[in-house]
Amino acid sequence: MAAAAVLSNGSGGDTKAEFAEIYNKLKEEMLEDPAFEFTDESLHWIDRMLDYNVLGGKCNRGLSVIDSYKILKGVDVLSKEEIFLACALGWCIEWLQAYFLVLDDIMDNSQTRRGQPCWFRVPQVGLIAVNDGIILRNHISRILQRHFKGKPYYVDLIDLFNEVEFKTASGQLLDLITTHEGEKDLTKYNLTVHRRIVQYKTAYYSFYLPVACALLLSGENLDNFGDVKNILLEMGTYFQVQDDYLDCFGDPEFIGKIGTDIEDYKCSWLVVQALEHADESQKCILVENYGKSDPDSVAKVKDLYKELNLEEVFHKYERESYNKLIADIQAQPSKAVQKVLRSFLDKIYKRVK
Amino acid sequence: MAAAAVLSNGSGGDTKAEFAEIYNKLKEEMLEDPAFEFTDESLHWIDRMLDYNVLGGKCNRGLSVIDSYKILKGVDVLSKEEIFLACALGWCIEWLQAYFLVLDDIMDNSQTRRGQPCWFRVPQVGLIAVNDGIILRNHISRILQRHFKGKPYYVDLIDLFNEVEFKTASGQLLDLITTHEGEKDLTKYNLTVHRRIVQYKTAYYSFYLPVACALLLSGENLDNFGDVKNILLEMGTYFQVQDDYLDCFGDPEFIGKIGTDIEDYKCSWLVVQALEHADESQKCILVENYGKSDPDSVAKVKDLYKELNLEEVFHKYERESYNKLIADIQAQPSKAVQKVLRSFLDKIYKRVK
Repeated sequence: MAAAAVLSNGSGGDTKAEFAEIYNKLKEEMLEDPAFEFTDESLHWIDRMLDYNVLGGKCNRGLSVIDSYKILKGVDVLSKEEIFLACALGWCIEWLQAYFLVLDDIMDNSQTRRGQPCWFRVPQVGLIAVNDGIILRNHISRILQRHFKGKPYYVDLIDLFNEVEFKTASGQLLDLITTHEGEKDLTKYNLTVHRRIVQYKTAYYSFYLPVACALLLSGENLDNFGDVKNILLEMGTYFQVQDDYLDCFGDPEFIGKIGTDIEDYKCSWLVVQALEHADESQKCILVENYGKSDPDSVAKVKDLYKELNLEEVFHKYERESYNKLIADIQAQPSKAVQKVLRSFLDKIYKRVK
Repeated sequence: MAAAAVLSNGSGGDTKAEFAEIYNKLKEEMLEDPAFEFTDESLHWIDRMLDYNVLGGKCNRGLSVIDSYKILKGVDVLSKEEIFLACALGWCIEWLQAYFLVLDDIMDNSQTRRGQPCWFRVPQVGLIAVNDGIILRNHISRILQRHFKGKPYYVDLIDLFNEVEFKTASGQLLDLITTHEGEKDLTKYNLTVHRRIVQYKTAYYSFYLPVACALLLSGENLDNFGDVKNILLEMGTYFQVQDDYLDCFGDPEFIGKIGTDIEDYKCSWLVVQALEHADESQKCILVENYGKSDPDSVAKVKDLYKELNLEEVFHKYERESYNKLIADIQAQPSKAVQKVLRSFLDKIYKRVK
């Protein structure tokens, strides 16, 4: 995924501790799943694979299920059962994220993830990681079946995870065939394409899914929350545009990585804006240098970005997008829903990492 | 999957034509799925990917849903809607098979599949095939949601596909970590391990799943068919043992491929039996030569198989297994269920390819 950075989160220490504890319980259940006769070796494998891939992130997607649910219920303290169910759904999203990351890293031939070698690069793992990805996805169905079967919203939960997974994989396909090396063709990149990739590949599972889980848990019908979905997708787009901006203009000290979108020929918001604003000779510079890894080419692209004043273009986009989101949020009939959406927006507006 | 060979099938030409027609309809629906905004390029990709991977097999798993459903209903002619639903479930199994094969071929670094290059070896595809595998899996959920949501057995269908997928992936993990190169250790191979890999990796989705789909479509509760499941798993085991036997002793002209289980260090029923029957010096020959690709080593293993009379051991197993299956089938209370099980057994008993 391009959006390696994740939301910073306002969850208190208690929520985090509870959340962490429930991971252990869920993992234990996976290791004792009667649907398979584990051997010692396969138990050990799954145990290690889960810790390596599900843990290690900031868990902001997962934690935001609990935060959103508390806001929707209008309470600070949840019952034991409510905590468990909200955390279980939060962990399903973390498992989903782990599944995407394990497979994306293979497809992108990446080196590191969350400060350690990508799972498929671990000795003895290799392409067994493909099957581990599948197992991670299957664990979500196992968790949902074990803890939610019989709830009135069980079918809706399954359909939600299936639909979000389908949209994410479709967005990923679009990204892969658009960006794909060997067929470099910048005319394929434009704002519509960028928006479509971002919304499907990142926004649905990172922004919509946590809130949709909290809504289902609160007994709501998702059909009544089409506007909420659209607002969250807009926020997801905004978040990814920031991510693209920071990849080039952010401080590597702050964001914790050195951006390589230019080298990687990414369909970044910046290159799309550059194509939009460039004259013919500037377009030639892009065609000539975008997607090459030598420092000279990268520097020429960055210089062009500065020449085209993309920093200012970004800040203007940021202001306008923020104002639009605020207006859309205030138009929501439910104060609780407004508060959920505001809590997401506050976490991402004007972030520097 | 080790079991590249599939059941031969008694379906008439009409069923096959109907089945093929419904593939076109399901594919069309996938290409018009409103859950994603397709570009021309992504539409073209999915279209080609489906034809390449879902078609080209003998479709025996899929067709057997329709055959089994007819037997369970006790009729030769089904209504238009019944035909459609049975075929749709049959195609879901074919989609599932395509999903497993696309990913297995990547993990096994295979060359060809169904007489053409493996999907990931097609130029421009490469590791995008990992994501295509995911999309194939997601299509099953899309088909089930579109055509079965609202049916009383919708949740059971979803749970069934999820559970079978989980068992298959777990069996695949066991196979991968048991067989895995670089850690050659024949002491890990025994009948229990072989049986576990075969049942989970192949028997659930190839033998149990088609019948379970037909049972759900007939309004049955799968909880009442535990014995049927066990019989089908036994048949799946028997089928895979045949497959392992034919890999070494079958006529390449007949089975359409040259077996490489010995070279590939597979946990084959033959090597397990050899280990069971060998004395210490014969075991040394196995340890020395199993999993090596030079013809001399392969010949030494084959000679040992002959010395240990594994052909006779196999024929004894085949007779006993067949008799046990016949007895178990006859103990089934329902004549229709007996007939379904017999139709499966008749297709696989004493096959030579």
